[in-house]
Amino acid sequence: MALARAVVLLSGGLDSSTTLWEAKEDGFAVVALSVDYGQRHRRELDAAMAVAARAQVAEHVVLPLDLRPIDGSTLTADIEVPKDRDEAAVGSGSIPVTYVPARNTILLGLALGLAETRGAFDLYLGINAVDYSGYPDCRPEFVRAFEAVANLGTKAGVTGAGRFSVRAPLVSMSKADIVRRARALGVPLELTWSCYDPSPAGRPCGRCDSCRLREKGFAEAGVPDPALREGARS
Amino acid sequence: MALARAVVLLSGGLDSSTTLWEAKEDGFAVVALSVDYGQRHRRELDAAMAVAARAQVAEHVVLPLDLRPIDGSTLTADIEVPKDRDEAAVGSGSIPVTYVPARNTILLGLALGLAETRGAFDLYLGINAVDYSGYPDCRPEFVRAFEAVANLGTKAGVTGAGRFSVRAPLVSMSKADIVRRARALGVPLELTWSCYDPSPAGRPCGRCDSCRLREKGFAEAGVPDPALREGARS
Repeated sequence: MALARAVVLLSGGLDSSTTLWEAKEDGFAVVALSVDYGQRHRRELDAAMAVAARAQVAEHVVLPLDLRPIDGSTLTADIEVPKDRDEAAVGSGSIPVTYVPARNTILLGLALGLAETRGAFDLYLGINAVDYSGYPDCRPEFVRAFEAVANLGTKAGVTGAGRFSVRAPLVSMSKADIVRRARALGVPLELTWSCYDPSPAGRPCGRCDSCRLREKGFAEAGVPDPALREGARS
Repeated sequence: MALARAVVLLSGGLDSSTTLWEAKEDGFAVVALSVDYGQRHRRELDAAMAVAARAQVAEHVVLPLDLRPIDGSTLTADIEVPKDRDEAAVGSGSIPVTYVPARNTILLGLALGLAETRGAFDLYLGINAVDYSGYPDCRPEFVRAFEAVANLGTKAGVTGAGRFSVRAPLVSMSKADIVRRARALGVPLELTWSCYDPSPAGRPCGRCDSCRLREKGFAEAGVPDPALREGARS
C-alpha cells in the first residue's frame, strides 16, 4: 500500500529538517515545500535542497514568492541583522526585527494549497515555542487557529473527504532537545543551515539570534555542531 | 488627520472592485493588493490596475506569485474552463474545477502581511456566499476563522496594538444587489473584468460560470453591463 502523504515546510534549518525526519518517522511519504521568498542569502535554500535530497522525499516543490513588496523584515529587506543581542533579549518573547509579517500564515496557506492538490491532510511545521525568537506565529494557539481555517477553507473541509492537521512536533522542545532528537533520527545536521546573515565566504556569522540559539542548543546537548566543521557544506 | 488604512484584495472583478469602493465609503485610505498568481489570462490584472487608478488608492501593490507548481485549477493550469454548465450547477454549492486550492487563505495571508507593514488593521475581501460558485473559502465561517489566525499570528496580535478585522461587505448579497450597490457607489463597472476565459480578441466568453453569474446579476438588477458595450476597455 502506498504511504499517505504529508507536506513539510522545509527551510533547510535545524528545526524544519528535524521536522521532516519526524514526518518520515510517522510513516509519511514527504512532499517538501520550500519558499524562495527573497531571503537575503541563498544559502538557506541550498540547504533545503541538500536536505530534501538526502531525505529522499517523494517530491520537493520550490515556490518563488518575493515578499519584498510587502515586507519590513531584516531577512528580506535591506536592514542590518541584529548581532550580539543582550542574552536576555534572545528567546525572551520580545519580537525582533527579523520577524517577517504573517510569514507562517502565508507559508501554511501555500502548504495547504499544495496538500490539497497532492491528497495530503497533514502539514508539518518546524516551529518551536520554547527557545523561540519571540515570533507570534510560532505559538501552539496559532497552529490550532490555522487548523480551523484549513478545515473551513478547502474543498476537503466541505466534502468531508478528510481533516487537515497541522503538526508541530518540536513546538514544546528546547533547542537542546531538538539537537538530541535530530541525532536520534539521523538528520544530516551538517547539511542544515540556520544563520540569518552569513559571511561572504558562506560561513555562519555566529552572532545573530538564530546562530546563538543553535549554538546554545548544541552546547546544552553536549555535542559539536557538524555544520561548523571547517569545510562543512562549502 | 490622516485616514486609517485598509488593505483591499483587488482582482479587478465586479465583486472586489465594489468592495474597494465600500472601503472608501467606510472612510479608509485604500492599500490595494493584487496577486499575479499565473492566471491564464492577463486581462484580470489589467482591470485591477485600471480600477485601482480610477479609485485613487493610496497604494497598489502587485505581487507575483506563481501558483502553478501547487495548483490543479483550470484558472492557472492547462485544463478547459467549463462552459454552459447546467443552470442548477452554477451557484448550487457544488465545487467546480475552477476552485484554486486554498486561494483565499493564501491571499488573506499576503494581505495580512501587507497590512502589518502598512499599519492597517482592516482587510477587505470581495467574497460572496449567496450567488457564489461553491468555493469553500467564500463562507462567513471561513472569514471568522481567518480573523482568529490574524490576531494570533501577528506582532500586533501579541502586543495588543490593534485587532485585525476581515471585512466581507458583499458576503450576504445577491449578484443583483452587488450590481445595484456598485452603481450607487459609483464603481466604474465598465473597467471591471469577470470572465475566466476571454476570447483571443479579449472579449468575455459569456459562457463560464463567472460570466453567467455576472450576466444574471445585471439582468436581475435590470441594467445593462457596461463592460459588454462594443469597444469597452479595448
